[in-house]
Amino acid sequence: MRNLLLTIMYDGSQYHGWQVQKNALSVQEVFQDAVEKVFKRRLDVKGCSRTDSKVHANMYCLTVKTDMNIDCQGVVWALNTKLPDDIAVIDCCEVSDDFHPRYSCKSKEYIYKIYNGSVRNPFFSKYAFYYRYNLDADYLNRECKAFIGTYDYKGFCCAKSDVEDTVRTVYDCEVRRDGDMVIFRVVADGFLYNMVRIMVGTLIFISEGKIASGELRDVILSKNRIRAGRTAPPQGLYLNKINY
Amino acid sequence: MRNLLLTIMYDGSQYHGWQVQKNALSVQEVFQDAVEKVFKRRLDVKGCSRTDSKVHANMYCLTVKTDMNIDCQGVVWALNTKLPDDIAVIDCCEVSDDFHPRYSCKSKEYIYKIYNGSVRNPFFSKYAFYYRYNLDADYLNRECKAFIGTYDYKGFCCAKSDVEDTVRTVYDCEVRRDGDMVIFRVVADGFLYNMVRIMVGTLIFISEGKIASGELRDVILSKNRIRAGRTAPPQGLYLNKINY
Repeated sequence: MRNLLLTIMYDGSQYHGWQVQKNALSVQEVFQDAVEKVFKRRLDVKGCSRTDSKVHANMYCLTVKTDMNIDCQGVVWALNTKLPDDIAVIDCCEVSDDFHPRYSCKSKEYIYKIYNGSVRNPFFSKYAFYYRYNLDADYLNRECKAFIGTYDYKGFCCAKSDVEDTVRTVYDCEVRRDGDMVIFRVVADGFLYNMVRIMVGTLIFISEGKIASGELRDVILSKNRIRAGRTAPPQGLYLNKINY
Repeated sequence: MRNLLLTIMYDGSQYHGWQVQKNALSVQEVFQDAVEKVFKRRLDVKGCSRTDSKVHANMYCLTVKTDMNIDCQGVVWALNTKLPDDIAVIDCCEVSDDFHPRYSCKSKEYIYKIYNGSVRNPFFSKYAFYYRYNLDADYLNRECKAFIGTYDYKGFCCAKSDVEDTVRTVYDCEVRRDGDMVIFRVVADGFLYNMVRIMVGTLIFISEGKIASGELRDVILSKNRIRAGRTAPPQGLYLNKINY
């Protein structure tokens, strides 16, 4: 069996996340339908991560196992003719049989876009979180460095999650401004449920003075969900890079 | 009666253009609903232009006449709370009673976005026309200058139109590249039905060598729709500026 690693991009606005679920359209289901049309059978599509409803991906990786003798460029082309406009395959390569898009992953990068203009912009409503009060990106960039390191991120995890090990290592993070857009970028070995969105809500709390300068480390160490900020809305979140 | 001039922006993806019509959702209808909620009666909303289905507006002007004593900033705020996320009011001011958003207009500017990357981008599918073969923006910029001037643009008008006077004055136009995006900008005293989209299709013909360098003026003077290019799709088109 060949193990094909596919890299895709998707606009998640219309989907209830990656994972197949009953009564709601997922990226995985739509992708499996396209795979079935190209490979003439319903193959198992393994993804690198769950994503929430309305969350986007600039880079998402998945594998498909097949016996079909079709070259990688042909797979990209054929799948793109079967996929809707909001999902695109950008690369395909063959990997070893034991490669798993989730477990072989060394780190992941997310970005979160906050539209910080003085007026609501209708073109960004599904692609960024609109926050109207001025954000000082340089200040938030300095404060956010407290996220870097290995911590028990239990306080930055949705209460609905039943994950036992809540220790994660954040390798890098930054806040930068690009015109009216403020972008938070974070790289870690893994992320808890809603972790990036709670990090962003916490940065908003810092901006609003609800968490003082230098206090973020204490908030993390408290492992107390109540001390972190609100969960920022999903449409600003993009899975940005998967490192193998 | 006060005559209020409102400036709005909209993502036209979900709408069948500006103008109210039966059995299809229009920006005007949605806007009139919001106006009715704020002003407590169904007021006439006069727009500056028709726009086609799926066409966007970075700037669109309209007027509403009212006796209500509400300040302009209050109108902006109140309407924005009633409008969906894909329509936003960005400004409001009071104008003279005889001001008409369509007839008082001196010129209009449109832009047309062509996504010219090597791979389809799902985030641009509703916001640009995807054309994969390389476009030489500098070459097209030089060639497009032939559009500037006063011409009978009959050959750049959809056959369905019944407008009698097809003479229009193009004041300025340009083609420029911004990364993978190629943007055509055009300013004129007015535009015929599908005129900008046919101009873009004609630029594509020039890029493909179907129209030779320097031949564009002849194509315009021929007044023959067959000699111009195909009508480019609507999602790349943005009404960009209204000059009064």
